[in-house]
Amino acid sequence: MKLVKEVTINEVGLRDGLQLESKVLTPEEKLDVFNLLHEAKVSEVEFGSFVNPRLVPQMANTSDFYSQIQEHEAKMELVALVPNLKGLEIAQENGVRTVNYVLSASNTHNQQNVRQTTEESLNSFKVLSQFASENNIGLNVTVATSFGCPFEGTVPQNQIMKILDTLLLHNINRITLADTTGMANPKQIYDLTKAVGDEWRNFEFGCHFHNTRGMGMANVLAGMEAGIRIYDSSIGGIGGCPFAPGATGNVCTEDVVHMLEEMGVKTSIDLDALIAASHKLKEILGHDLPGQVAKAGKSSRKFPVPN
Amino acid sequence: MKLVKEVTINEVGLRDGLQLESKVLTPEEKLDVFNLLHEAKVSEVEFGSFVNPRLVPQMANTSDFYSQIQEHEAKMELVALVPNLKGLEIAQENGVRTVNYVLSASNTHNQQNVRQTTEESLNSFKVLSQFASENNIGLNVTVATSFGCPFEGTVPQNQIMKILDTLLLHNINRITLADTTGMANPKQIYDLTKAVGDEWRNFEFGCHFHNTRGMGMANVLAGMEAGIRIYDSSIGGIGGCPFAPGATGNVCTEDVVHMLEEMGVKTSIDLDALIAASHKLKEILGHDLPGQVAKAGKSSRKFPVPN
Repeated sequence: MKLVKEVTINEVGLRDGLQLESKVLTPEEKLDVFNLLHEAKVSEVEFGSFVNPRLVPQMANTSDFYSQIQEHEAKMELVALVPNLKGLEIAQENGVRTVNYVLSASNTHNQQNVRQTTEESLNSFKVLSQFASENNIGLNVTVATSFGCPFEGTVPQNQIMKILDTLLLHNINRITLADTTGMANPKQIYDLTKAVGDEWRNFEFGCHFHNTRGMGMANVLAGMEAGIRIYDSSIGGIGGCPFAPGATGNVCTEDVVHMLEEMGVKTSIDLDALIAASHKLKEILGHDLPGQVAKAGKSSRKFPVPN
Repeated sequence: MKLVKEVTINEVGLRDGLQLESKVLTPEEKLDVFNLLHEAKVSEVEFGSFVNPRLVPQMANTSDFYSQIQEHEAKMELVALVPNLKGLEIAQENGVRTVNYVLSASNTHNQQNVRQTTEESLNSFKVLSQFASENNIGLNVTVATSFGCPFEGTVPQNQIMKILDTLLLHNINRITLADTTGMANPKQIYDLTKAVGDEWRNFEFGCHFHNTRGMGMANVLAGMEAGIRIYDSSIGGIGGCPFAPGATGNVCTEDVVHMLEEMGVKTSIDLDALIAASHKLKEILGHDLPGQVAKAGKSSRKFPVPN
């Protein structure tokens, strides 16, 4: 089994995770979780988004929250999602150093998500790219519904390749291929990420998986077999997309880190501190979270022998 | 990604699944689920166990239940778990055609499970093997804790190979390597099943996984990459072992079948009927089940576009 040797985790729980929760967390509650993620040595955190607060009230306090975590920027990459130029401008005003721009490979999903065609979002991207470059802001791009759309179904591989072609003409840090509603199977993950990796050997792609149909962890395995070394995941396995029906939690950070470390793939993350972060989040949200390792303990946990 | 082309599912929900449920199902309730499994064209069902009814009350009506499903034996393999010769004798009296004898690779787990050392269970196996052979009963063997023990931790590979060596001196249908408490990671699955497959090329091994730490589906993928074509799984993802602390549900049948069919690996199972069986089981048990596909629907499900 050929695998990558190390993996970078981009923790998206405070953004993708919280946006489907009915409880809106205060900046202080977000900080409680963030501090434990920081303690766990998580190196990248997508901490929020600059989107319409009426549409996604969970993200309304993103500016406030960022001002409380900004001091960690030297040692961590703190990323804000932006859906458009306005979001990027607000991010810039707040001093954000890295943003993640999202567009959907599927036209229908893009229209539901940002009320633009994919073509229009690609045009907006060019403007954002120039703004980011002029303001020295790192630009990541997430290509949503890369592995299928809940409205359109299959998204052809050449449609993805064409989008990547356009994106890669510009100056960007990273492209993340996202299985937004957990439709992808491991073979599909392997095939597409291998094709993309073979086509652009000098650019590093990430993946973003949801566990909607139980395939999330198998998809991480398949991605690693194809050479992908960057994964989005959310603490506790919370998450979803408010504009994608049927979407459920992201792959769970502590479950992914546990599996990788058990396999000898390095994450540089302190799993015990990560589990503590998951427990804290559960306490704040007041309900059970999908993650398994936070409940069962690590595989290395030994139980006392009953008398 | 090199995968097997087809897979046989051995449905263990009515045995491994139900034995951790607080509600004891009547034979009629079991039959309701079984009929839907039959409709879904599941070809192998572990329908119960002949164990001490005081210790595992959920299995006390196994004889009754078997008499109601026996007519399907021509088209389905109906398997009963037996922990010892007494269990096998009862199975024989009931006319059971195939039994599954379980022993643990880990001594401590074996003692907790059947109050014998692994060595003693291997000696018992020889007696059972002769009895089964004389009575024309098919004999499967499950090697529990093949990938780790909740009491002892790591189980060395040569310990497994030695047990297999002994088992394979006798006339048996199948050996299933079980990750009884969901400790195994995909690399470990791949390495051990590959080693076992390489050593005994003319014997077909199965695998039995639990999703305790979220690795169950990734382990199925790893097993298929190593050439394993037979998997135990439980409808709805229910399950566990009453004598193994921390154990939770088996990998979920409908989730496994969905993933495999999406990948082009044939199971010959009707997924829609399987999902109906899972819904029926949920209704009978009266609580939510761990399986994901029964909640989210298949990846191919298309959602209407909101106005």
